[in-house]
Amino acid sequence: MSKLVIVGTVAFDAIETPFGKTDKILGGAATYIGLSASQLNVDSAIVSVVGGDFPQEYITMLQDKNMDIEGLEVIKDGKTFFWSGKYHNDMNSRDTLVTELNVLENFSPKVPQDHKGAEVVMLGNLHPLVQLSVVDQMDNPKMIVLDTMNFWMDCALEELKQVIAKVNVITINDEEARQLSGEYSLVNAAKKIMKMGPEYVVIKKGEHGALLFYKDEMFFAPALPLAEVFDPTGAGDTFAGGFTGYLAKTEDYSFENMKTAIVYGSALASFCVEKFGTERMQSLTKKELQHRLQQFKNLTQFEITLV
Amino acid sequence: MSKLVIVGTVAFDAIETPFGKTDKILGGAATYIGLSASQLNVDSAIVSVVGGDFPQEYITMLQDKNMDIEGLEVIKDGKTFFWSGKYHNDMNSRDTLVTELNVLENFSPKVPQDHKGAEVVMLGNLHPLVQLSVVDQMDNPKMIVLDTMNFWMDCALEELKQVIAKVNVITINDEEARQLSGEYSLVNAAKKIMKMGPEYVVIKKGEHGALLFYKDEMFFAPALPLAEVFDPTGAGDTFAGGFTGYLAKTEDYSFENMKTAIVYGSALASFCVEKFGTERMQSLTKKELQHRLQQFKNLTQFEITLV
Repeated sequence: MSKLVIVGTVAFDAIETPFGKTDKILGGAATYIGLSASQLNVDSAIVSVVGGDFPQEYITMLQDKNMDIEGLEVIKDGKTFFWSGKYHNDMNSRDTLVTELNVLENFSPKVPQDHKGAEVVMLGNLHPLVQLSVVDQMDNPKMIVLDTMNFWMDCALEELKQVIAKVNVITINDEEARQLSGEYSLVNAAKKIMKMGPEYVVIKKGEHGALLFYKDEMFFAPALPLAEVFDPTGAGDTFAGGFTGYLAKTEDYSFENMKTAIVYGSALASFCVEKFGTERMQSLTKKELQHRLQQFKNLTQFEITLV
Repeated sequence: MSKLVIVGTVAFDAIETPFGKTDKILGGAATYIGLSASQLNVDSAIVSVVGGDFPQEYITMLQDKNMDIEGLEVIKDGKTFFWSGKYHNDMNSRDTLVTELNVLENFSPKVPQDHKGAEVVMLGNLHPLVQLSVVDQMDNPKMIVLDTMNFWMDCALEELKQVIAKVNVITINDEEARQLSGEYSLVNAAKKIMKMGPEYVVIKKGEHGALLFYKDEMFFAPALPLAEVFDPTGAGDTFAGGFTGYLAKTEDYSFENMKTAIVYGSALASFCVEKFGTERMQSLTKKELQHRLQQFKNLTQFEITLV
């Protein structure tokens, strides 16, 4: 088992969906990634920053879930990053109501010494230069996974391209893959993005599943069709946490093992959306995860009989 | 092997996509269904109507592809059904430019005597009363599959519900499933539709694949991600033809075999969109189909290792 380094936001979220509304609750990419990876009992480290307003009980919870928090800087007189958003009725789109960067504005990530040798690094959605700084602090990682979004394509494309050139895997959604590549077909988009650096391209299609591209090969994992999606916040990060957690746990970076990692990510993400915020991920048990992995198997496996 | 009865349009289509434009070419639901099922060497019968303007060479081609055309009525002084449409740049939506019902206006379907004992019936998209008339002419079919669309939900809902009550399988797209059931979640939509009659509900999501629902079980088959979609016309009918063709060929109506039937349908549909109209389906070989079935297997199969 390798260690896992996770950089990303640790934040307060206020969320509104057709099912209800929350006050400021625990959120952030690194939080979701870490909670998801913790299901695989991986030794992970969170590299992030919070303000003096961040409750100790949240920090204790992260530690209880196997996360090293030496790299989680606390700026006593600063305020924690805050995001607020409202989902539309179809749950596939949302409006951002508030973004307060606060302590994130001058964030300079520090990877803890005894995690610099980790084989797997998960670069959660953040400014590309912050992601780059984490890459530069690592000794000799084998698998760097990058998550990003259209916001950075719009306002920091050159810096983003610098990070993309240094990673092994990029995970982005379908619209972002189209924007980054200028190609409408996802097959062509993945080919172009591979030329920018990553050997593996993961395209997330939300409720329509995820595609993994490697050389001329493809793998597809569906999302589990759910009767109700309660709150999609953090689903993409939860996916990334399951994906990288599984890779760190197995230390097997073959295409075959990547497929299983994608299924783990999809299975974990399917829990995340069942309740508001991180609630479901905090209560999730190993048995529930195993049962859901079997559901994914039943959902997709078939026999071909040639007639 | 059972016989397969196919009712649906045999038509002229004029198609415009971002890749080009056709004059009046061969089209129609029954044509696509029959061409697709013919890949499985099924003994099928087309129940439809054309005008005196329908070329003999097309009729000969259908016969060459294993289709009985005794039920294909030719109205000498009538004109063949004509549809013209233009696809938008994303290929997921289209505008209908022209619909000329012509001989379809007074169509009264006649199932050939020696096909009334067929076990499998494919009711292609048509007025529900025409579909109902075909059901009533069958002796004792085991598997009646219904395709329909939102147009009939808008203007002939009561008649449509009468047919739905009599079929074993319904295939509709995601938006239509939502409209018919009043449920946004496809899981809940499928449950409601099952209560209307069919044991099996197939929800087609175009480039996002297809879902099969049966009791409390689900199966998902992706669409093959393609570098280029040339013309989506007939993809849904080609899917239905592969699905019912495989069922007729195997005479096995279990949930497990339905899964394989869905994959055959998806594989055949992935060819249909590669060229304009029926061109690709006419040239398709058994070897190409077998190769693509293997691609579907590679795309979706994975191992779960519990960690």
